[in-house]
Amino acid sequence: MIIGIMKQRQSIMEQKKLEIVIEDNPIDNVQKTVGLALLGLGTVGGGTYRVLTGQLDEIQKRLGCRIEIRHILVRNLKKASLRVQDSRILTNRWEDVIEDDGVDIVVELMGGMEPAYTYIREAMERGKHVVTANKDLLAEHGPTLLELALNKGVDFMFEAAVAGGIPIIMPLEKSLAGNHLTEIMGIVNGTTNFILTKMSEEGMDYREALIQATELGYAEADPTADVDGLDAGRKVAILASLAFHCPVYFHDVHVEGMSMISAKDIRYASQMGRTIKLVGVARDTDTGVEAYVCPMLLPKSHPLSSVNDSFNAVFVHGDAVGDAMFFGRGAGDLPTASAVTGDILSIAENILHGSSGRIGQLLYKKRPMKRMEDTYNRYFLRLHVEDRCGVLAELTEIFARYEVSVAQIIQREHQKDDLAEVVVITSLVREGDFQTAIEELSYRTSVKKISRMIRVYE
Amino acid sequence: MIIGIMKQRQSIMEQKKLEIVIEDNPIDNVQKTVGLALLGLGTVGGGTYRVLTGQLDEIQKRLGCRIEIRHILVRNLKKASLRVQDSRILTNRWEDVIEDDGVDIVVELMGGMEPAYTYIREAMERGKHVVTANKDLLAEHGPTLLELALNKGVDFMFEAAVAGGIPIIMPLEKSLAGNHLTEIMGIVNGTTNFILTKMSEEGMDYREALIQATELGYAEADPTADVDGLDAGRKVAILASLAFHCPVYFHDVHVEGMSMISAKDIRYASQMGRTIKLVGVARDTDTGVEAYVCPMLLPKSHPLSSVNDSFNAVFVHGDAVGDAMFFGRGAGDLPTASAVTGDILSIAENILHGSSGRIGQLLYKKRPMKRMEDTYNRYFLRLHVEDRCGVLAELTEIFARYEVSVAQIIQREHQKDDLAEVVVITSLVREGDFQTAIEELSYRTSVKKISRMIRVYE
Repeated sequence: MIIGIMKQRQSIMEQKKLEIVIEDNPIDNVQKTVGLALLGLGTVGGGTYRVLTGQLDEIQKRLGCRIEIRHILVRNLKKASLRVQDSRILTNRWEDVIEDDGVDIVVELMGGMEPAYTYIREAMERGKHVVTANKDLLAEHGPTLLELALNKGVDFMFEAAVAGGIPIIMPLEKSLAGNHLTEIMGIVNGTTNFILTKMSEEGMDYREALIQATELGYAEADPTADVDGLDAGRKVAILASLAFHCPVYFHDVHVEGMSMISAKDIRYASQMGRTIKLVGVARDTDTGVEAYVCPMLLPKSHPLSSVNDSFNAVFVHGDAVGDAMFFGRGAGDLPTASAVTGDILSIAENILHGSSGRIGQLLYKKRPMKRMEDTYNRYFLRLHVEDRCGVLAELTEIFARYEVSVAQIIQREHQKDDLAEVVVITSLVREGDFQTAIEELSYRTSVKKISRMIRVYE
Repeated sequence: MIIGIMKQRQSIMEQKKLEIVIEDNPIDNVQKTVGLALLGLGTVGGGTYRVLTGQLDEIQKRLGCRIEIRHILVRNLKKASLRVQDSRILTNRWEDVIEDDGVDIVVELMGGMEPAYTYIREAMERGKHVVTANKDLLAEHGPTLLELALNKGVDFMFEAAVAGGIPIIMPLEKSLAGNHLTEIMGIVNGTTNFILTKMSEEGMDYREALIQATELGYAEADPTADVDGLDAGRKVAILASLAFHCPVYFHDVHVEGMSMISAKDIRYASQMGRTIKLVGVARDTDTGVEAYVCPMLLPKSHPLSSVNDSFNAVFVHGDAVGDAMFFGRGAGDLPTASAVTGDILSIAENILHGSSGRIGQLLYKKRPMKRMEDTYNRYFLRLHVEDRCGVLAELTEIFARYEVSVAQIIQREHQKDDLAEVVVITSLVREGDFQTAIEELSYRTSVKKISRMIRVYE
């Protein structure tokens, strides 16, 4: 220790020699230490452990402090011991973490609602800063946790909870703070984007693409949360809250999945100059906030339409910045660990500069949520009708009654029967009105089947 | 004032009433004020003035402080008076700004080297924080200014200096701080990207596209800085410095323009599955840092290849995050103002929380710069050769001597003479070796003309 202090007093002339010493023994010359506890050593926990331990030397040089992982909370100590250098930091007792005053930051990477929710609240109550990648928890309790953090004067960061490694939360909060953001839209689920890319580029059907996604590890054994849009819905809730500065919960988000999309829909869309993506959309309109997840036809010129495979991207529109997009890996151990580590380092910097708890009023507005039927969209409609004169006139006549006009139309003769397949893209229309029009259409004897209805962007 | 304090003491129950009061008179309830001076009221200065004045109310709610524009330094007071609400804040005397202790942040939006450089240094010397959008200055004196800011304990931010409205500096510094970044590559000049998009999509030649860019206001009367890659080169210097944590200056960047690119090159590239873009590239390799700007063939699947028109994008590769990209408007009054405003608000937040001057050691490494001839690339080569047997063998024989192999080849018979046009994409080769091979090739009688040599990404 005395040697350490003496070394620090050496002149700048000897800086080079000093630097070598730092590299040999990183602990010697740096007094400040920020203590961490990781909760969980699964995919993201393991990735974060690897990224952090690989970057210790760099971090020290940049921040001028030492990051120390003091505990990793795991369920199975034996299994976990194979994955860390020093198994003494492993524990299966939450008390070891919460009662250790040396733990400045609790990094929750367990996922799920409980015990994560309790642990995070207890950590904040004890004045510990929190990083989490837990979107399920945030979409449900984000506003409560933000308020608790504000009251306790602790930092609370969650860059990894939306779009994995892609920096989006901090850019929204800081870099774009001068904007009134009116739209945020994202491909925020890699599994479904991989499936739709395979269907689109290789003509696979949904089942085939899902099997491939499962084989490659992109889809989980039970893919429901992905393909039904639930995962994306949680991310939309978080994004909408931050973009519009008002609490938006998962239950506020209208969610539709993508499993009904067929290779045929994708082919028709392509002929009409469009790509089908599962998108999460949030808009701040004069009459309220709309937030939904659904498959959508995007013009091929839209930046999101060329986001392929398991990549994610978040597109933002602000009054000053115009259109901006953030692209990258939305999942995976290392990309998610990248975001978690960025948060940890920001909090460490705050601790070093005595400026923690600057969370501010993130959700200072109260905005009404719009019902889905009150949103305005364009629609892609695929239906089978009798193959005879006058049927199209009947269709457009019903449409006209609800102020729906037809922007694009494709009609194909059916091979086997006397039916024709008609595909229409409409103009902008209030969803409720369009649904009434479709209902009326479905009563007509000339309309045999309404096969698909997909929203169309712009 | 007394009323103001009393209002603050009202209970939360009356919050709603209080909010209305805030909206009626935004100044009443907020005591803290952060004072600004804008230097310049041109495109970016005017945009920043508009964005700031339009956001005052929102800013106050979020930050809990008032932002006051105390001075705008202009050359022509009369002309400027038409552009502001209260012309009393205009001045043409720098003394008015620098001697005003109420000015916390100096926002330099004049551009150019002097007097901007002097003003920024003087502001820092006086303990004022600085925001700038001045890439020319940063590419030359960035490291000096960062050091001065560090010594003086002031904030120094420049998000707008690279890629305009796109948040890139803060994501690099904060969100991706856990990464070892190995590559940063960008389309960071909107003018040239517009020109190349027109040439690519509408088959225009360079002159025609440049005229259109000028007419639309994308290109300046003298487009040299854009088309010769100088503007992009300055941005690459700044990006490389921040990504690799070592000083990289404009004179370290190898710069080539794009005015020689022909519609024919673009057509051939397209046949070979590639798009031509003017890109700035910086890589951190084992043998040093490489930084250059040049036209480049990108695979159509690369995220940068679908960045069209005057849009910009910055692509990053890090060991943890993998590939990430940031897309948006790289210029224009409001997008640039968006970035400037984000910086102002971050600094204001630091002032309010007493945590200014946290700039840290951004450039703590010293890395050698690689010479261009030591970089490894693939090459697109278009040449005219005698249309006879054995010429291709001659070409590949010379290539083989320098360990260049041919990955793709197109040969076209010429209409008018006995020449054939050969277009080749090579494998990866050291630039110096390739140049020697090309020189040797140019001495052969069978080779009539080497028309083009463009680097190829991957």
